[in-house]
Amino acid sequence: MLLKASLRDITPYSAGKSFPDKVKLSSNENPLGPSPGAVKAIEAVLGGLHRYPDGASTMLRDKIANIHGLTREEVAVGNGSDELFALICGALLDTGDLGLISENTFSEYRFSLKLFGATVESCPLKEGCYDLRGLAAKVKAETKILFLCNPNNPTGTYFNHRELDNFLSALPSHVVVVLDEAYQDYVDAPDYPRALELIKKYPRLMVTRTFSKIYGLAGLRIGYALGQEELIRSMLTAKQAFNVNLLSQAAGAAALDDQQFHNSSREMTLEGKKQLYKGLDDLAIQYYPTQSNFICLSLGIPAEELYQQILDRGLIIRSLKSFGMDRHIRYTISSKEDNQRFLDILKELKSC
Amino acid sequence: MLLKASLRDITPYSAGKSFPDKVKLSSNENPLGPSPGAVKAIEAVLGGLHRYPDGASTMLRDKIANIHGLTREEVAVGNGSDELFALICGALLDTGDLGLISENTFSEYRFSLKLFGATVESCPLKEGCYDLRGLAAKVKAETKILFLCNPNNPTGTYFNHRELDNFLSALPSHVVVVLDEAYQDYVDAPDYPRALELIKKYPRLMVTRTFSKIYGLAGLRIGYALGQEELIRSMLTAKQAFNVNLLSQAAGAAALDDQQFHNSSREMTLEGKKQLYKGLDDLAIQYYPTQSNFICLSLGIPAEELYQQILDRGLIIRSLKSFGMDRHIRYTISSKEDNQRFLDILKELKSC
Repeated sequence: MLLKASLRDITPYSAGKSFPDKVKLSSNENPLGPSPGAVKAIEAVLGGLHRYPDGASTMLRDKIANIHGLTREEVAVGNGSDELFALICGALLDTGDLGLISENTFSEYRFSLKLFGATVESCPLKEGCYDLRGLAAKVKAETKILFLCNPNNPTGTYFNHRELDNFLSALPSHVVVVLDEAYQDYVDAPDYPRALELIKKYPRLMVTRTFSKIYGLAGLRIGYALGQEELIRSMLTAKQAFNVNLLSQAAGAAALDDQQFHNSSREMTLEGKKQLYKGLDDLAIQYYPTQSNFICLSLGIPAEELYQQILDRGLIIRSLKSFGMDRHIRYTISSKEDNQRFLDILKELKSC
Repeated sequence: MLLKASLRDITPYSAGKSFPDKVKLSSNENPLGPSPGAVKAIEAVLGGLHRYPDGASTMLRDKIANIHGLTREEVAVGNGSDELFALICGALLDTGDLGLISENTFSEYRFSLKLFGATVESCPLKEGCYDLRGLAAKVKAETKILFLCNPNNPTGTYFNHRELDNFLSALPSHVVVVLDEAYQDYVDAPDYPRALELIKKYPRLMVTRTFSKIYGLAGLRIGYALGQEELIRSMLTAKQAFNVNLLSQAAGAAALDDQQFHNSSREMTLEGKKQLYKGLDDLAIQYYPTQSNFICLSLGIPAEELYQQILDRGLIIRSLKSFGMDRHIRYTISSKEDNQRFLDILKELKSC
């Protein structure tokens, strides 16, 4: 077979589906569209598309650094967070290394580790939450990279600052921790980890964030990583010359200035969350309390079946079978109208 | 050191520099700007940027396949050709594998091989040309991937159909050949390889092309690969879920329809080539005959020195020191005026 051994059991990524005439609420995209500030910034630079982008993404990194009180050397940007996961794996993984992940989480962690030949070990969720103790117990001398997703995709659950700090302080110093905070803009828990504090304390902690969600730029592919200088420098060694395109660099920088859009997006999600909690409670449907722009729930029936029934009624949600949860679905919190429609469909299905 | 062994001797990519008030002719960018058709296509889809791109790039792959008389399964697209080089290395390279490249060629081949842990062997150019016999003699049982650049960046030289066909037919069947044809749109040599014929004949041949040059879309990052189905399927296994952004997919497809822009770009380069040949001959300056949109020449003085002298006079060209040619420079063929200015500068420097 024309494929190296470590990739032979890779399942292709299962993306949220699209159908004309159906409302897509399966990929945690921003229901308000893209940041208008970002769109304007793209229009302004289109005439220069024949030029290569700045390979170092200097302007965008400076902007991100500035907002977080960091230096440019403590920031990397990637062609989506996916690329950042691959970069850190590409920079560090040698033959015989282990990677450690949780089960029922974002699939690109496993993929990135296996792409660079690591053997992947995993630890189950505990009642829908990352089991930090369980993960710590699985760390070995060969464990080089450990991925955390907080809040977790697809459950929306989180671990708090104290829990993470304790976990990191007990971890052997040879382990690099990648903390994916793609959904942190939607968090309202006051004890959510203060990642910037932790980066200063732990030289082997890397935090990733994204422009795909709250800034509505999933189509462009822009993620960024924060960490201490040595870690960031290492990961950038694995970077292709021009990894982040010219439009993404302009759009990302402009999006960070578009606070109004950021705020409206956050507000809509937090209001939608209240609406959904109330509706689901009324229907006595089990869900995980969420710190994200999505909610994970179960009607006790097979996820693929529920997915199809909801699709037949006009909404595309995500069956979590590909996440290893075959009786759960994930719904992207949307407008009041979409949310109500979702609740109405659930009500109908429950009474069937 | 926080970096795996195979990356410790990687030199960061040396990009063409930009300075305000200087004309940039150092990165083989299109002097006519971006394809207007592509720009229009981007504007038309900006409102949908909050959506993830099609991870399979179906529409763009179908379009490319159609133009070349291939199927979708025989086409891959990447975030620039750079990503395609990394994908094939990521899909195939296992511990202990060797990669084979030429010296004085595009640096991303070596990078991609080392990123996935291969040991890289190389073969010198022969009078500025790829030495196919020399390369063939260096193939071993462990040689898994061999990179060819035709026409070669930075010399502009080429090997012909017969030479390549003979080379491929004599190659052991365990070697995958990546043939980078980034500049093939500028070729006017009638005996240039007919890559599509060769793909049908050799299951382990992959050909890459780019939208960065003749379509003026370097800023967007879009390259594509053609090959037999098994090879393409293998390389796509190494792909991140959403590697090619939504705007690139739309722009690439539209650019392929913008034949007028393609033709004008080609015409300008071919006329510029004639102008430069004549001017350089008159000045008795040595250059390599080129099949590309650039020309490689030497005044016999150190490249960095010549680079600086030309920069002082307003043009940014490329010193080829980072390509291992420390007495050669590379000039991107441009408008009649730019070309004349370049010739005038060379004349002045020669008479110093």
